[in-house]
Amino acid sequence: MNIDGLQYANWSEKIFRQMRKGGLDAIHVTIAYHETFRETVLQIERWNRYFELYPDLIMKGRWASDIKKARDTGRTAIFFGAQNPSPIEDDIGLVEVLHDLGLRFMQLTYNNQSLLATGCYEDEDPGLTRMGREVIAEMNRVGLVVDMSHSADRSTIEAAEVSNRPIAITHANPYDWVPARRNKRDAVLRAVTDRGGMLGFSLYPHHLKGKSDCSRSDFCEMIARTADLYGPENLGIGSDLCQDQPDSVVEWMRVGRWTKKIDYGEGSASAPGFPAMPDWFKDNRDFAALREGLSTTGMSTGEIDGIMGGNWYRFFETEFLAKADL
Amino acid sequence: MNIDGLQYANWSEKIFRQMRKGGLDAIHVTIAYHETFRETVLQIERWNRYFELYPDLIMKGRWASDIKKARDTGRTAIFFGAQNPSPIEDDIGLVEVLHDLGLRFMQLTYNNQSLLATGCYEDEDPGLTRMGREVIAEMNRVGLVVDMSHSADRSTIEAAEVSNRPIAITHANPYDWVPARRNKRDAVLRAVTDRGGMLGFSLYPHHLKGKSDCSRSDFCEMIARTADLYGPENLGIGSDLCQDQPDSVVEWMRVGRWTKKIDYGEGSASAPGFPAMPDWFKDNRDFAALREGLSTTGMSTGEIDGIMGGNWYRFFETEFLAKADL
Repeated sequence: MNIDGLQYANWSEKIFRQMRKGGLDAIHVTIAYHETFRETVLQIERWNRYFELYPDLIMKGRWASDIKKARDTGRTAIFFGAQNPSPIEDDIGLVEVLHDLGLRFMQLTYNNQSLLATGCYEDEDPGLTRMGREVIAEMNRVGLVVDMSHSADRSTIEAAEVSNRPIAITHANPYDWVPARRNKRDAVLRAVTDRGGMLGFSLYPHHLKGKSDCSRSDFCEMIARTADLYGPENLGIGSDLCQDQPDSVVEWMRVGRWTKKIDYGEGSASAPGFPAMPDWFKDNRDFAALREGLSTTGMSTGEIDGIMGGNWYRFFETEFLAKADL
Repeated sequence: MNIDGLQYANWSEKIFRQMRKGGLDAIHVTIAYHETFRETVLQIERWNRYFELYPDLIMKGRWASDIKKARDTGRTAIFFGAQNPSPIEDDIGLVEVLHDLGLRFMQLTYNNQSLLATGCYEDEDPGLTRMGREVIAEMNRVGLVVDMSHSADRSTIEAAEVSNRPIAITHANPYDWVPARRNKRDAVLRAVTDRGGMLGFSLYPHHLKGKSDCSRSDFCEMIARTADLYGPENLGIGSDLCQDQPDSVVEWMRVGRWTKKIDYGEGSASAPGFPAMPDWFKDNRDFAALREGLSTTGMSTGEIDGIMGGNWYRFFETEFLAKADL
């Protein structure tokens, strides 16, 4: 079973067909960066149209069981997530509404301070806000997973502690491998994985050692070492594939509507666009090659199966359900 | 089984308890008159809070099977509906989004011309609009029932003809019994019921012979005569109970934001508020008395069971499902 814990492609029939070639059973897709509630609903409408137009390639994912249904019918199940809490605006009631519409992951922050917590690009991290604690409790109640991929350390550790269900970092790598601002320090990874939370390994070049030149064996060795430290059962893939997106999209991700200046995020003035993907992982067809790479690290087939999708599957099985239905 | 095809009460624990006393297994409740999409979502949030606060009395209804679940657990299943297409604004994609959030009925008009069709208070009825035809097809696809309770004759007949699934008039009575503007002429009732559509009998005094003074036997005799004409299997109750609502609410229903003047609708300058309910049907506890009234009309127990809820149940069983799942 192959499950990708995060993608934000410029979706098209071509990409949906590549997902099938790569044997992707499920993907968590981003539907909001800075979108309001209404704008997020427009993204859901866009996906509904894809589901109607390509019923032989993709289907909406709501529950882990939908992944089995997708496998049985040769399709990829699409699970929605938001990289920012902007879709709930300042209204805690929208947590349940969005879960009802299929949202399954929500980051408490995207780089900046939000109403809920602090992003990884702020200078100061005062931890969870009053509303942040309330929203985590509501997310716990309805089965919307707290994702801290773009959050600062203290906020992330507090979220792991305050949440009464496991949380996730859907797409990042260990800071000890590459000290990128988006990668996660040991204390953060411990706080998340000690409580059954998940880390999805990112293939976004800014999170890789050597960036676009990172070799497959380096990446896979890093996974094996991370499994030694935090347990293979808490790990998955979160490729962060942004296939076919124009550079205007990475600008939207970074700048949204919060500044009038250009913020280069993980890029720079001389390299403001999307970085090139490593040549061994360009699109969804390369999941087989990733699995092959992991097989040379000495990890067992069971461990590799878990990292390639089984662990996300087990996590989805419980964490998307309302607390009352557990 | 008792199912009410329409209510818009000032919801409270008291009313939820009265539903249980009246043996209501399911109610279709109005969540929008003139509300935009976002305002409708606020009403859904309000209901979500009721479901959280009163889990022993009510539960959200999505499918007919939820009515069985509600019966088995001693609760009333609440199904959402809109009396106007204002919640979809000018966006056909919101049909599926709202169905996903639990909307199960949508009137194409509320008294006035809408983007989709003509309301029963307009002087001219040019029939379905271009968007109206598109939206009916989309409602048919996802399983959102077309409700023409407040629509004009030609629009209603065209909707029944254009729809490829049965439609409903959730709350009105035959015009031949009381020539109220909201009651339905024979040709309209034929167009709806000939195609398996439903009529829910209204207990709103403006739709009754003698208004608030209408006797139970008059009302029940009218039902029996209507069953002779259109078939008992196409009939149900749609009480239109607006219990505990202040008169400001009936003004909102009639005036919304479409005029700066007062529109008295079915009322008048001398009687602008909610009319008093008949003394034999004041609230949800009176469903047993209504059943008793029907039992004196000569209708069979099976026919009465159908009108009190069985027919709505059968209708819900198919009509709330997406076309693809039928």
